[in-house]
Amino acid sequence: MPIISNMEIFEAQNRISGVIHRTPLCHSESLGRMAGVEMFLKTENLQKTGSFKIRGAANKILALPREEGAKGIITASSGNHGQAVTYAARMCGYSATVVMPKGGSRVKADSIKEYGAELLFCGSTSEERISYARQLRAERGAVYVPPYDDLMVMAGQGTVGLEIMDDLDGIAAVLVPTGGCGLIAGIATAVKELNPSIAVLGVEPEGSNSTGISCRAGKRTALNTIKTVADGVRTTIPGELTFPVVQRYVDDMLTVTDKDILRAQYLILERCKILAEPTGAVSAAAILCGALPEKFKGRRVVAIVSGGNVSMEQLRESFDPPCRS
Amino acid sequence: MPIISNMEIFEAQNRISGVIHRTPLCHSESLGRMAGVEMFLKTENLQKTGSFKIRGAANKILALPREEGAKGIITASSGNHGQAVTYAARMCGYSATVVMPKGGSRVKADSIKEYGAELLFCGSTSEERISYARQLRAERGAVYVPPYDDLMVMAGQGTVGLEIMDDLDGIAAVLVPTGGCGLIAGIATAVKELNPSIAVLGVEPEGSNSTGISCRAGKRTALNTIKTVADGVRTTIPGELTFPVVQRYVDDMLTVTDKDILRAQYLILERCKILAEPTGAVSAAAILCGALPEKFKGRRVVAIVSGGNVSMEQLRESFDPPCRS
Repeated sequence: MPIISNMEIFEAQNRISGVIHRTPLCHSESLGRMAGVEMFLKTENLQKTGSFKIRGAANKILALPREEGAKGIITASSGNHGQAVTYAARMCGYSATVVMPKGGSRVKADSIKEYGAELLFCGSTSEERISYARQLRAERGAVYVPPYDDLMVMAGQGTVGLEIMDDLDGIAAVLVPTGGCGLIAGIATAVKELNPSIAVLGVEPEGSNSTGISCRAGKRTALNTIKTVADGVRTTIPGELTFPVVQRYVDDMLTVTDKDILRAQYLILERCKILAEPTGAVSAAAILCGALPEKFKGRRVVAIVSGGNVSMEQLRESFDPPCRS
Repeated sequence: MPIISNMEIFEAQNRISGVIHRTPLCHSESLGRMAGVEMFLKTENLQKTGSFKIRGAANKILALPREEGAKGIITASSGNHGQAVTYAARMCGYSATVVMPKGGSRVKADSIKEYGAELLFCGSTSEERISYARQLRAERGAVYVPPYDDLMVMAGQGTVGLEIMDDLDGIAAVLVPTGGCGLIAGIATAVKELNPSIAVLGVEPEGSNSTGISCRAGKRTALNTIKTVADGVRTTIPGELTFPVVQRYVDDMLTVTDKDILRAQYLILERCKILAEPTGAVSAAAILCGALPEKFKGRRVVAIVSGGNVSMEQLRESFDPPCRS
């Protein structure tokens, strides 16, 4: 029995459609010509809060009984998920608390504060933060919103898949950047339950390929070290709830190098005029670097551009000459 | 009697809708909060060929009898208009010839060649180029497509206005970057003939404000020198056919500095995750720098992001620290 089905994703779509952007599916002749496919980008970098994460967060938070939400919302992510949770909580009139690592990025802290969250600092590992967030949940009765391993979060992310299916016919493959697997679990469920003949492919940086390894091992397998420029998919192990969905619905896992990712980020900006963060360029990278299997040549492929939250300083570093060759 | 009416713009929409992108009208909470308005961007930087120019070029070229088009299409612009004319000509199976200045930009020449045009080099001023293009028109019987002073071109650009009116209610003002006035003449006709209560405002760089000067003088008035970073609106005088439309329909002309333009370009990239060329950021600049009249505060305003064709080298220069303050 699958963990989620399209029913939960359609419910999520009804719940969140008034508060999220329906992002454009952009056709890129220029990138498609380079890669020998008909290439489309699902532009979740143009989503509210700059990434798809608002979909899952809003689905989870909008579904809460008001008396639960009123006790406050907690998360442990200072990245895109933290911004999304804060935005969705504030939108509902709930307080948001984000647990951040001590000595973490000042830029991220400022950005989260700008969104209106209370900031608490704890430890340096994500385990310490999550355990502190859970302690707060117990103390305050607040609601903890996990970044991916949650049915409501997964269902929210799946709405990306429904929009793609609604906007385009004749799709051969959908490529999804993969970390904890919340996005790909949602999209794969949406796509496969509407049309099982469409391939759903996950893409990971080669220095952070725990899902590919887990798929080949037939069980969740952790990496000891993670090394990639794509900070949104630095996950040591796929989720407990998300991984069975990946096993059921995802056709294949591909890998790309950091160089492929930065080159794709550059080309997406230069040719398509949109800004992807490195993680947001991961699935386009697979198409542009030749990792896409030969059978998709000449056909319609969709790359999810999952987010665009990159500081202008990081962007400048990304585009140092060595990355552009 | 107006020179064009909405009828020609609706006809243009029917003619070109199959070959252009219907570009998204993006709501930006972040920029709107900064400026104290509800701010929307019409993203013509995501248009085919990277700017709105394809609308006018396609409208002109698709309407040609095939025997005329078959003699070839000529233009004298090596910028966005040249790319658009070449793209539209090639799409119809016609040859395209672009007359460029001797010793002009290698990057632009390469880009035009990539689009499939024949390149001819002549003189260094735009007068020399246009006169050579007209000579070729006479010799070859080819069709010359002017950048703005043409009814079919104006009508094509006006389709931007129809899309905005279709996508959003309650608009208080539409702001348009203004050079030769083809875009603003088309948009103003579309908007005002559907709803005269919406303000249409032109925006010029202060170093290239011939339309503002002409409006105040009550007649077309030329500038002797032009100085602006916004290379798409470096025009010494508004068009003969476009200016009467501006006089009839445009409510006011605003100016912005180059510093305002580069700051807007930066903020559009950082906050909205889309890449505007400096000219494409001109109308957003007026909203962000406080040039927008007080009466529009808190209301819905639309800024046309006219194009996104900027090289990554130019972008890096634009973003040197002094421009970001």
